[in-house]
Amino acid sequence: MIIVMKPNAAEQSVNSVLNTVKENGLRTHRASGETVTIIGVVGDKTKLDTSTILSMNEVEKIVNVTESYKLVNKKFHPAPTVIKLPYTTIGPDSFTVMAGPCAIESREQIHAAAKAVRDAGATMLRGGAFKPRTSPYSFQGLEEEGLKYIQEAARENAMDTICEVTSEYALELAVKYVDMVQIGARNMQNFELLKEVGRSGIPVMLKRGLSSTIDEWLNAAEYIMSYGNPNVALCERGIRTFETATRNTLDLSAVCVLKEKTHLPVIVDPSHATGVRAYVEPLSKAALITGADGIIVEVHPNPPCALSDGPQSLYFEQFDKLMKDLAPIADLTGRTLH
Amino acid sequence: MIIVMKPNAAEQSVNSVLNTVKENGLRTHRASGETVTIIGVVGDKTKLDTSTILSMNEVEKIVNVTESYKLVNKKFHPAPTVIKLPYTTIGPDSFTVMAGPCAIESREQIHAAAKAVRDAGATMLRGGAFKPRTSPYSFQGLEEEGLKYIQEAARENAMDTICEVTSEYALELAVKYVDMVQIGARNMQNFELLKEVGRSGIPVMLKRGLSSTIDEWLNAAEYIMSYGNPNVALCERGIRTFETATRNTLDLSAVCVLKEKTHLPVIVDPSHATGVRAYVEPLSKAALITGADGIIVEVHPNPPCALSDGPQSLYFEQFDKLMKDLAPIADLTGRTLH
Amino acid sequence: MIIVMKPNAAEQSVNSVLNTVKENGLRTHRASGETVTIIGVVGDKTKLDTSTILSMNEVEKIVNVTESYKLVNKKFHPAPTVIKLPYTTIGPDSFTVMAGPCAIESREQIHAAAKAVRDAGATMLRGGAFKPRTSPYSFQGLEEEGLKYIQEAARENAMDTICEVTSEYALELAVKYVDMVQIGARNMQNFELLKEVGRSGIPVMLKRGLSSTIDEWLNAAEYIMSYGNPNVALCERGIRTFETATRNTLDLSAVCVLKEKTHLPVIVDPSHATGVRAYVEPLSKAALITGADGIIVEVHPNPPCALSDGPQSLYFEQFDKLMKDLAPIADLTGRTLH
Amino acid sequence: MIIVMKPNAAEQSVNSVLNTVKENGLRTHRASGETVTIIGVVGDKTKLDTSTILSMNEVEKIVNVTESYKLVNKKFHPAPTVIKLPYTTIGPDSFTVMAGPCAIESREQIHAAAKAVRDAGATMLRGGAFKPRTSPYSFQGLEEEGLKYIQEAARENAMDTICEVTSEYALELAVKYVDMVQIGARNMQNFELLKEVGRSGIPVMLKRGLSSTIDEWLNAAEYIMSYGNPNVALCERGIRTFETATRNTLDLSAVCVLKEKTHLPVIVDPSHATGVRAYVEPLSKAALITGADGIIVEVHPNPPCALSDGPQSLYFEQFDKLMKDLAPIADLTGRTLH
Repeated sequence: MIIVMKPNAAEQSVNSVLNTVKENGLRTHRASGETVTIIGVVGDKTKLDTSTILSMNEVEKIVNVTESYKLVNKKFHPAPTVIKLPYTTIGPDSFTVMAGPCAIESREQIHAAAKAVRDAGATMLRGGAFKPRTSPYSFQGLEEEGLKYIQEAARENAMDTICEVTSEYALELAVKYVDMVQIGARNMQNFELLKEVGRSGIPVMLKRGLSSTIDEWLNAAEYIMSYGNPNVALCERGIRTFETATRNTLDLSAVCVLKEKTHLPVIVDPSHATGVRAYVEPLSKAALITGADGIIVEVHPNPPCALSDGPQSLYFEQFDKLMKDLAPIADLTGRTLH
Repeated sequence: MIIVMKPNAAEQSVNSVLNTVKENGLRTHRASGETVTIIGVVGDKTKLDTSTILSMNEVEKIVNVTESYKLVNKKFHPAPTVIKLPYTTIGPDSFTVMAGPCAIESREQIHAAAKAVRDAGATMLRGGAFKPRTSPYSFQGLEEEGLKYIQEAARENAMDTICEVTSEYALELAVKYVDMVQIGARNMQNFELLKEVGRSGIPVMLKRGLSSTIDEWLNAAEYIMSYGNPNVALCERGIRTFETATRNTLDLSAVCVLKEKTHLPVIVDPSHATGVRAYVEPLSKAALITGADGIIVEVHPNPPCALSDGPQSLYFEQFDKLMKDLAPIADLTGRTLH
Repeated sequence: MIIVMKPNAAEQSVNSVLNTVKENGLRTHRASGETVTIIGVVGDKTKLDTSTILSMNEVEKIVNVTESYKLVNKKFHPAPTVIKLPYTTIGPDSFTVMAGPCAIESREQIHAAAKAVRDAGATMLRGGAFKPRTSPYSFQGLEEEGLKYIQEAARENAMDTICEVTSEYALELAVKYVDMVQIGARNMQNFELLKEVGRSGIPVMLKRGLSSTIDEWLNAAEYIMSYGNPNVALCERGIRTFETATRNTLDLSAVCVLKEKTHLPVIVDPSHATGVRAYVEPLSKAALITGADGIIVEVHPNPPCALSDGPQSLYFEQFDKLMKDLAPIADLTGRTLH
Repeated sequence: MIIVMKPNAAEQSVNSVLNTVKENGLRTHRASGETVTIIGVVGDKTKLDTSTILSMNEVEKIVNVTESYKLVNKKFHPAPTVIKLPYTTIGPDSFTVMAGPCAIESREQIHAAAKAVRDAGATMLRGGAFKPRTSPYSFQGLEEEGLKYIQEAARENAMDTICEVTSEYALELAVKYVDMVQIGARNMQNFELLKEVGRSGIPVMLKRGLSSTIDEWLNAAEYIMSYGNPNVALCERGIRTFETATRNTLDLSAVCVLKEKTHLPVIVDPSHATGVRAYVEPLSKAALITGADGIIVEVHPNPPCALSDGPQSLYFEQFDKLMKDLAPIADLTGRTLH
């Protein structure tokens, strides 16, 4: 951590900062330029509250040199995390395709979807039982009934399942039925939920908040890991920008950044990022070639009748073609597609 | 609602949409241009899922003509909402100043803050007992102990209290001790929490999400009202943009937009919006003159020692001066300052 | 400037950076923490290209401690700049209202506007003769003819004029007819135009680019000043964000930031920032109370017939009321309204 | 175009709009719902100024159904544009790699770069002679001298050249020496420059503005085409968002959107989008697989000594590896790499 003093800061202000840092058990290096004095801080920075320093007289700013997250940090844990589910392995040697409808609507629908995506080669079934919806008047999900349907559909087709959880109550139910839970963009900084998922130990995919920096996202993952759960994957799903031609802006360079900063697997969601069916195929390929460890895509037996997110759901034939198109690219990158 | 077909859409596609709309009990108006056909939809649109329509063949887009929120909508409820607390009235005739430390740190700290802000003229005490923090290693709040301290400090000074709740558990505790709860930016779309606050009936201030549109924000308020709670105020606290000179970008024009669209009171938080102590005074005045119904500002007995958000907290003398500066502007606008 | 090395950087990499800095005639301070080494750089940083340093082995990042702009910097020139025009003074003791139509459409239109805004108390007439339009098929302005009309209208009413220039050609014409030129948001980083305006010496108002940081904006102003023109005002006109309820998001906190960083006058444009007539009045008042030195607002004899930007133009009566509403606030702040 | 009236608009207001539209030679379709009346407008909308309508009484908003750009629109010109240069063809059957240093610094530097990128397989040499720099104190380019060097270097290596032009003066010089010009992000809406480039007829690559929507970008391209120049390519180079881990956010989904809306070739610039050398390779591959027609990347003989943009420039060996890595992906997509 570097503390930058205001230009021509009084000696008294500088000393005051130096003393405060030292009182917290840390060491300092002082360097004075013509107008500006900077103070390097050495030691365990979790002992020091940056707000305190920032509030002191003539302190201009603080520059963090080391990241605040530890457990998710590749610097300290260089080996890539591999998440093992009954039928699926998420990690550097595979490209995991999570597919299925946005919302579980009925037993028939999720069974049809499971069979179709399994036939096309995917081993992981997605489907929402608890739907966070902008308007209170929209369909909110089948809840436990939906969880039962998806578990059943997955078992019959030798697949794993992933479902979003939106509250501690939903989590309690979900752990009984699904193999992996998902924390959605709106809950990325619902810290109480992060802690609970951390305690549960269930494999979890943490979606990036709509306007979260990568740094905040990694700190959110740190919450889960620091409460005891090492099975965390991250999911880039588009960020909010001024552009309206797509629902959000898929930040594919985030995959590159994450691969440098963390050992956690990275999944890409081109369906929610764009909101447009036709863009799912090219951006799925792009995710694979960029180095992502998987994608999550929406597939529906009859997209025009989907109760949510219809416009971005693939038809079964489109999903089948997507898997066939991904295969040679997976070969090129040395990953197993499943 | 207007459905816009793609250019030169086939007659069959148009008819298919017309039929679907009618089957849902709504009426249609068709208008065909040289290349584009549009379909106006008349009736109760909550009966129709827009995703279904958007997924149909040759549908280009849907344009909403009426808002999806009803209870918070000024069109249907033109009279301004007034929230009455024991010592404070939030509404069009007053300018409510909520002041106090970001986090409750000790009995002494909150008592000192209560006395100082009350002496300066404010009747509402803020202070956090549950702190949502980006890093799991930062101070997370005194929880119930903090709630007891703030209640005590408020009673001694004839004030009302407001505290953030971050989970259903926090809400359960908070309702026992405080007069108003706050839902923070990170939880604006934590729909389960919104529903619980709706059921509780306790007065609530809903902060705008960091990257939430005004429309999403009003829909979030609609969740609370639709679960039975009419005592909702909105709080603009800055949105996330590319600019880094301030922590967030205070969107003061949102006050104007809200005053046009909703009957709910609007509070402005210049402390969190800017993160800079020196900007709190000018932007508090701006909030008042623009038509806001109040502000929430951070005040701390000793800002350099604050455990969170020190750099933006006002010293007691600064807060006293702020209240004196606001007085003539409140007079100009015909509002009672408290 | 502080150079931060990557964790555990090799001694050779550190030395290489130290040598490069010294070869450029600057001094260094080295501070090594447990894993990270930082190098403080002292001296005239314009001698050093930061890209060179950033490209060196194991350099993590560079932190600028001092700003790159000098002439516009309040640290070096604390006295506020005052721009004196024949009838108007722009500076800390006045609140300048620039008013008139978005585009000059005819002699009659600009004469009517001039008289109306002068009668209401404003001494500065705005009107565009060169219009930058998103589509090539929109009205592009009357050019020199328009400049003649506005000059004539201003002289008859004892007013000053301001017009946008969009090219060197437009600048050459404008200097013959107007008292102040404006560089629009789209040209804020048209550096060739900035240099020409710098050489011309004519008073200039530099609008903020749609997505420009305050730092980039001040550097753009530095271009003008470094080419010899000290008569520069800045104009906040809204930034581009995700919110669509207003055309742009007015960043009023930028006024606070600018007042801290620069001695140049600051004008606010609530018309372009919001695009909504009804929001111009409250936000004009907010600009004044926040500390801006003036506003620029659109006023049109017959807004529904305006050839551009009609929805945000005030009617004459609305402008008259605005001036009356601003008067007591100007009194409060000790500024002369004109 | 659809005109939406405010809820319960008076019959007189509706008629007034209907009449205005008809007076402009257009036809109308009226549809009235329970509270809202909408008016569909049929005919040549360039005859109607939308601002006029928006200013009329009780008009809520206007929804555009057809795009304002014509010449760049794929709907009217479905065949993809192919730009033919002496050694390079930009279009659907090839993947064009434009490579070279950010700035031309010396004859030796550009010759070395030309030879290296040609040896690696690229036929198009980039290099800046006019540099738009944020600070007036940064290196601004060699101007005409640089143009001579790049022409010479390209001829010796059987390559085409591309250079940025920042003003009409730069354009006049550039057309004498280079095969294609580039309009940078900062000048995307410098409409006077767009018109001049349109008149010149020289092949041009138009970069996306830092905060430009795709719609605005296509309208800017329309300016060039409407002034007579059909040889236009578009270049996605990252947009400005809140994320700071990369310099800008590469919007790869824009490639998908553009391929749907326009017949113009699309180039991607991963160097400027990310500002990080290590991300250029994965994102170049992603651009190819997503459907882009080429990339523009920075390559420098000695990146640590580059006078601008060093941190993102590739070393010669890295560029050579990039071309080798792109080859099998180009094969997969049926494109010739050059």
